[in-house]
Amino acid sequence: MTFNAYATKRARAALEKFSYEPESLRPGDVEVTITHCGICHSDVHLADGDWGDVFPLVPGHEIVGSVVDGPAERIGQRVGVGWQRSSCGTCAFCVAGDEELCADNQATCMGHFGGFADRIRVDGRFAIPVPAAIPSDAAAPLLCGGVTVYTPLSRYAGPGSRVGVIGIGGLGHLALQLARAMGCEVTAFSRSADKEADARAFGAHHFFTGAPARGSLDLILNTAHAAPDMDAFLAGLGRRGVFSQLGAAPGPLAVPVMHLIGGSRTVTGSAIGSPGAIRAMLDLAATHSIRARIEGMPMHACNEALDRTRCNLARYRMVLAN
Amino acid sequence: MTFNAYATKRARAALEKFSYEPESLRPGDVEVTITHCGICHSDVHLADGDWGDVFPLVPGHEIVGSVVDGPAERIGQRVGVGWQRSSCGTCAFCVAGDEELCADNQATCMGHFGGFADRIRVDGRFAIPVPAAIPSDAAAPLLCGGVTVYTPLSRYAGPGSRVGVIGIGGLGHLALQLARAMGCEVTAFSRSADKEADARAFGAHHFFTGAPARGSLDLILNTAHAAPDMDAFLAGLGRRGVFSQLGAAPGPLAVPVMHLIGGSRTVTGSAIGSPGAIRAMLDLAATHSIRARIEGMPMHACNEALDRTRCNLARYRMVLAN
Repeated sequence: MTFNAYATKRARAALEKFSYEPESLRPGDVEVTITHCGICHSDVHLADGDWGDVFPLVPGHEIVGSVVDGPAERIGQRVGVGWQRSSCGTCAFCVAGDEELCADNQATCMGHFGGFADRIRVDGRFAIPVPAAIPSDAAAPLLCGGVTVYTPLSRYAGPGSRVGVIGIGGLGHLALQLARAMGCEVTAFSRSADKEADARAFGAHHFFTGAPARGSLDLILNTAHAAPDMDAFLAGLGRRGVFSQLGAAPGPLAVPVMHLIGGSRTVTGSAIGSPGAIRAMLDLAATHSIRARIEGMPMHACNEALDRTRCNLARYRMVLAN
Repeated sequence: MTFNAYATKRARAALEKFSYEPESLRPGDVEVTITHCGICHSDVHLADGDWGDVFPLVPGHEIVGSVVDGPAERIGQRVGVGWQRSSCGTCAFCVAGDEELCADNQATCMGHFGGFADRIRVDGRFAIPVPAAIPSDAAAPLLCGGVTVYTPLSRYAGPGSRVGVIGIGGLGHLALQLARAMGCEVTAFSRSADKEADARAFGAHHFFTGAPARGSLDLILNTAHAAPDMDAFLAGLGRRGVFSQLGAAPGPLAVPVMHLIGGSRTVTGSAIGSPGAIRAMLDLAATHSIRARIEGMPMHACNEALDRTRCNLARYRMVLAN
């Protein structure tokens, strides 16, 4: 049994063909033939060595495919796999359905070989059925990008909430759609004025290239990889407002204390989401025709596709297809 | 009708005798003869001009006294008044019992004359009955300092929560007692090793002069007026852990992004609390014999008392008595 993949052996090196013997299937595990794999900025961070020595690296953690081995009742099921491939299943977080917080969580493409491949084996709990309404290529980016923005939206927003989304890229364009579907009043923030038409098409009621009006938002999702003017954006939150950092900005956020104390504002962050959150997000996407807007490329063009993500050229997510 | 107070006319000037004509009593307002008034660091900030031109200033917003005018059923009632003297009563925050977040909240000694006086008039909703079990002098600091630490404790902690308190002063010594009474596992952090015995007497199970062990806390209250090593203290929080800033630190907090994203940690802040929170906190204090540890001085010694607070000499709260 050999799985065929694309791997890089060291930071910033090109991906090359790579074969490996998979771990044996344990009870509950599934083997998935991969049809599609989205490319997330985390794949660029991993490939560029930003997050340490993770080599050899097979990137890819926005996977869609079909179950070909594992529990009999799952054979043939179309599933998605995101950033997380397993968890302990018994800690307080796992029992509460917050598996993404498990101290023993395992990453799909860090310490294991990811989705730039023809097949993958993962814990079956983390292979989530994809609703029939969503095409596989448009579903792939939902598995990481989609649930990453859905989790703070579901925790901190609801119908009528005033939600701001900073950065209209892979995560941002999904956040606009999901927030709109949840009944929020949605404002897009981008330095690129030429993204206004797309942002409105994704569901934004308002579009700004600058900062929000004072007290005009309940929740801000920062999907950008840089910190905004924290003084201006925290002033844009009403009392009890929440700023959630989702992009892996390199430096610390400079948070003015008086915004925290005066209005009980909160600065928090979030990464991915639980299998339960992925299911709920996929259901919402199916119901509301939410789709990742993608650029498709064949798997063998993975170097070119990764470069487009690295250079922020993807409109709005690169998805590789086998 | 003349009220006799102590006021300062400009930043850092001495307090001097000052008389004023009170505003007329409106329906629901109460007039309180003041027996005691605690001194909070906010009084120092106001008197030193840190928060703008608030002069003439009568400081004082940890008031205990007796109702002498207002609704007939309240005459003779022993009450406490904290930082807030009124709110609109009709906005979403007020209706929800979060009056401290009301955009029209009025401060007891900013824009109005405060508790370094013989009498005061306030909206009766913000004159909270003090349980008989608590002596007036030990109750006064609960009205601002007590509820300021109680609010984030009641929101983010419960029995078994692992709570860290940074800074063992006016707020910190109350936080230790309240957290202990709520059933938390309590850790005190102070740069002053000589505060260990007091901290343990107030309820701390553990005492550190340095940073916490990784992932060892669920909630950190920073009552100090300076930021700690944010990297070390956020690493001390478990997943979903909350850091709540209560002291008015002058500079921004430098918050490392990966602590927010990786473990869904939160940095927030809080100021004072609602009348409902004050009632609940006073009940808890009465039941568990929680008392502010105070240094009492006569009202006419207010300059000396304010100086002791300014220089962090109070053990642990200065309280003026008429």
